[in-house]
Amino acid sequence: MSAAADPSFPAPAHLHPVRVYWEDTDAGGVVFYANYLKFFERARTEWLRAAGFGQQALVDETGAMFVVADTRLRYLQPARLDDLLQVSVEPQQIGRARLVIQQRCLRGTALLCEGTIHIACVDRGTFRPRRIPTDLLQRLAPSASALPA
Amino acid sequence: MSAAADPSFPAPAHLHPVRVYWEDTDAGGVVFYANYLKFFERARTEWLRAAGFGQQALVDETGAMFVVADTRLRYLQPARLDDLLQVSVEPQQIGRARLVIQQRCLRGTALLCEGTIHIACVDRGTFRPRRIPTDLLQRLAPSASALPA
Amino acid sequence: MSAAADPSFPAPAHLHPVRVYWEDTDAGGVVFYANYLKFFERARTEWLRAAGFGQQALVDETGAMFVVADTRLRYLQPARLDDLLQVSVEPQQIGRARLVIQQRCLRGTALLCEGTIHIACVDRGTFRPRRIPTDLLQRLAPSASALPA
Amino acid sequence: MSAAADPSFPAPAHLHPVRVYWEDTDAGGVVFYANYLKFFERARTEWLRAAGFGQQALVDETGAMFVVADTRLRYLQPARLDDLLQVSVEPQQIGRARLVIQQRCLRGTALLCEGTIHIACVDRGTFRPRRIPTDLLQRLAPSASALPA
Repeated sequence: MSAAADPSFPAPAHLHPVRVYWEDTDAGGVVFYANYLKFFERARTEWLRAAGFGQQALVDETGAMFVVADTRLRYLQPARLDDLLQVSVEPQQIGRARLVIQQRCLRGTALLCEGTIHIACVDRGTFRPRRIPTDLLQRLAPSASALPA
Repeated sequence: MSAAADPSFPAPAHLHPVRVYWEDTDAGGVVFYANYLKFFERARTEWLRAAGFGQQALVDETGAMFVVADTRLRYLQPARLDDLLQVSVEPQQIGRARLVIQQRCLRGTALLCEGTIHIACVDRGTFRPRRIPTDLLQRLAPSASALPA
Repeated sequence: MSAAADPSFPAPAHLHPVRVYWEDTDAGGVVFYANYLKFFERARTEWLRAAGFGQQALVDETGAMFVVADTRLRYLQPARLDDLLQVSVEPQQIGRARLVIQQRCLRGTALLCEGTIHIACVDRGTFRPRRIPTDLLQRLAPSASALPA
Repeated sequence: MSAAADPSFPAPAHLHPVRVYWEDTDAGGVVFYANYLKFFERARTEWLRAAGFGQQALVDETGAMFVVADTRLRYLQPARLDDLLQVSVEPQQIGRARLVIQQRCLRGTALLCEGTIHIACVDRGTFRPRRIPTDLLQRLAPSASALPA
């Protein structure tokens, strides 16, 4: 289920450009696979920022912090130095304390990597689960009050 | 199915120690989640080395290179600076061109992260799938000739 | 001597924006100091790209590769998650086989980090020094033919 | 002046082994130069640990944190995947709030990279300079009370 297809996910799918630098590559001549997790996170961070929320401010003001709980990635084609990639953010589930995000990394129309990221909202001090701050949740999913925690 | 339980996987489950340094942490005060993929790969590399195979030598001598095709990780508890972790390697499937490895990251008896990594053997130049060099395959799984590709 | 002040360095000082993500920070709550070398390199890469040269294409077409030979960095103030930084590129010397680049990382008008990077042009296969390809050198410094190697 | 040559630096020069993994390399086929800063830091961390001090415990118990203030590195020869390196720690100056450490990275007898790292002791909250905790300083340099701040 994509963000676009479901009216309960009004946050538009976000697209974030990523340029491949030397730091991203490995001796195989391609992007080191762990780095797609970095690319995906940059895109999620910009998606939140586009919704009006910086994560440092979120921590400072509410004590809430997002942590990654589960990642599933498929690697289909390699990316190389200087490639310009596009990374998508498509929220699949927005619960009161958890997000499930589908992400893709494309070079032009070629799908290089895709995955699903489960994110939990925790307290910065204890790392125990807590609710996503209300105004952020409402911005991400106005109908989320009907969703399960 | 664990390496220990199945006589067709004579390579023992491997255990690799990892110390957490500043470079591994993020502003949340814990190990950045993408870095567990690095820890897991270090352990797999040492597992191959214990079987007598360095990956650079493998590339130089045979043109074969291992690439990651699929990763699934669950993050259960955070690790912190100075923690001493143990990362396990348990081969689940050893095929002619593909490996499936289960891995765990522990601090003492606490399970911090676990996952399954699918690895493909490819040609270093074309990135097209190819068979794992025979002597390496025999070292990893003497009965692998009966396994599907 | 800045690029702006010296007519023999027609390449304008370049400015490259860098956003700070979780991946860039460490448990001290600030950007991990080694990562400024990554930020500086991204800026140099974009400076070369603005001059019409991608580094992967350069390697593929000429066999020439730039490697870092010497780095000197001073760290003045920390950067934090979500900060938007500006990284400058100011060529100080452009020789036939070597570049010396001065770089600064700023947040607004605050200088966070500054440094000098010496870069050598080498052959991709042997890592032995070689001349910078002529058309790139002319683009970077039209008067460089008068400069020492 | 090496640690071994000067009786006021009783902490012996420390040597720390580093294995090169895929994560450390770049598309040039060699270790990415920024990663030597990581290798150097791992060695300094183990040098402090050998003196009886973990840095996380130091922060938790005293609020003191070491930050890097200045780095100078020279890159002489590249390292490759699977190389086993040795990284040395030779304290050059041990002051009340600042350390100057000389470090080398060797593969066998070949010197690959060397550098000097200036480290400041700061308060974890304010990042303002503070004295190194007395018992750590005494362990690093028993005669340091005679040294300038």
